[in-house]
Amino acid sequence: MEVNNGGGMAAELPEGIPSVIPGWFSEISPMWPGEAHSFKVEKILFQGKSDYQNVIVFQSSTYGKVLVLDGVIQLTERDECAYQEMITHLPLCSIPNPKKVLVIGGGDGGVLREVSRHSSVEKIDICEIDKMVVDVSKQFFPSVAVGFEDPRVTLHIGDGVAFLKAVPEGTYDAVIVDSSDPIGPAQELFEKPFFESVAKALSPGGVICTQAESIWLHMHIIEDIVANCRQVFKGSVNYAWTTVPTYPSGVIGFMLCSTEGPAVDFKHPVNPIDADESHAKTLGPLKFYNSEIHSAAFCLPSFARKVIDSKAY
Amino acid sequence: MEVNNGGGMAAELPEGIPSVIPGWFSEISPMWPGEAHSFKVEKILFQGKSDYQNVIVFQSSTYGKVLVLDGVIQLTERDECAYQEMITHLPLCSIPNPKKVLVIGGGDGGVLREVSRHSSVEKIDICEIDKMVVDVSKQFFPSVAVGFEDPRVTLHIGDGVAFLKAVPEGTYDAVIVDSSDPIGPAQELFEKPFFESVAKALSPGGVICTQAESIWLHMHIIEDIVANCRQVFKGSVNYAWTTVPTYPSGVIGFMLCSTEGPAVDFKHPVNPIDADESHAKTLGPLKFYNSEIHSAAFCLPSFARKVIDSKAY
Repeated sequence: MEVNNGGGMAAELPEGIPSVIPGWFSEISPMWPGEAHSFKVEKILFQGKSDYQNVIVFQSSTYGKVLVLDGVIQLTERDECAYQEMITHLPLCSIPNPKKVLVIGGGDGGVLREVSRHSSVEKIDICEIDKMVVDVSKQFFPSVAVGFEDPRVTLHIGDGVAFLKAVPEGTYDAVIVDSSDPIGPAQELFEKPFFESVAKALSPGGVICTQAESIWLHMHIIEDIVANCRQVFKGSVNYAWTTVPTYPSGVIGFMLCSTEGPAVDFKHPVNPIDADESHAKTLGPLKFYNSEIHSAAFCLPSFARKVIDSKAY
Repeated sequence: MEVNNGGGMAAELPEGIPSVIPGWFSEISPMWPGEAHSFKVEKILFQGKSDYQNVIVFQSSTYGKVLVLDGVIQLTERDECAYQEMITHLPLCSIPNPKKVLVIGGGDGGVLREVSRHSSVEKIDICEIDKMVVDVSKQFFPSVAVGFEDPRVTLHIGDGVAFLKAVPEGTYDAVIVDSSDPIGPAQELFEKPFFESVAKALSPGGVICTQAESIWLHMHIIEDIVANCRQVFKGSVNYAWTTVPTYPSGVIGFMLCSTEGPAVDFKHPVNPIDADESHAKTLGPLKFYNSEIHSAAFCLPSFARKVIDSKAY
């Protein structure tokens, strides 16, 4: 059987691009053994090596431009809305009046774009370890990096763990951890000391939302994250998930916790962003998030609920 | 950069197995251009050509055994629970007392397995066009094909469209259409005359649940299905979705409609299967479905809601 690669001549990719189909980028990792997702490449737009990781940007034939760090897809223009909107509005719509927000990672600017929809927010700090990610996003993903243009944003290039240690107690109403997988530069962001720093940096009843992998692939990692968070965060501890087609297994999860203080019921948003459309004038409308899908995101398949409930509640 | 295929020597696959990574099966189709999902093959267990399609079964390295029809993955042992449980319990848990159920397609037996959890059901007809699918499932997927062992089941090998035309009016309380994609033998199952036959075969307030593709990839197909169903089904018309990692884009949707008669509110299950655990003794517990995820499945991302609502309500 001849395999149809989607038409056209298969371009040879430059050295350093993992490709198993001629002219296609393939995502292969020990984080999801035995499977690979491949995308047809129209053009390689950028290839660089920062102090921390390999950075690739390519134009795909059907998912728009794609950002790849250390061989793993971080975002595509076609589905980035799901991840950015959910990781941001799940925490910010769950508290009545977010004013100070910290983003750890998120160097592409997409989370900033979503935070900036919230008119209550006065100050947005972002600490990204890799300046190349910021530069590349500004050059190739202007509709994502637009988040950096908000005057409330201060960009800190550096290590998120160190940054948090220096933060005065009770500074932030929300901390959003938009990290890559727990192998590579982001590893510490999944460990207990990091969560302790976050808890300290949060105001009473403040919230954290952190990227927390796939219920289909990483229940053992999720179990550990939940157990750590249960020890550290004395308010509520919850797991939510959403669909992102270009992430392995097609889903990504979020750990949402609150500190001691005013109770936070993450499942029932008290600060609905979709009720106020004023931000849509400058940033365009929300594509994915709404209050209904906010609540639905906390409903877990039985196999995941069983494990997470045993650790969390 | 060298690509790590997951360890071990890459086995040469027999002729007729689409493979772009040596030793891996790749799913490539015009239904999802520009992307491909690949799985490492441990062993090809079956390869045949029926009157309707090519049939392959292989042992994958991380998703258990995999059933492939015409190059498209139908089920893997690892994630089949999500699809089978949702396509079955979304309709059957939405009506108070399902007695007669018809399954169109579903020759692997997984939907039958789930229908048979419902003790109210007295008669289960299944009409599958391709006997080879049934035989192969019985041989290689005993935990799926177990559905055929229920004495309430009658298997009809034949064309679902023709079968439905011969059904007396008002026969079934629920019809579940577990079809492949609308290119190939299943095409007619997505067209208006077929929906009209289903509506006729249903009792007043009876329900249909049909496989309805991906909100990320097939909104144009979904739009047509919704518009057709809106014309045909005079009760309610709804779209739901769930995660299935090995389906393209990681999600699959379902069209759920009811005929004129007692009102059906699909979003609030009146017949919760997870409250009655008696079926778990023989079939094992539900892995995926629960009443919470039932309701959550009807919450759509904004981009999909906008299109579907404009056609459906």
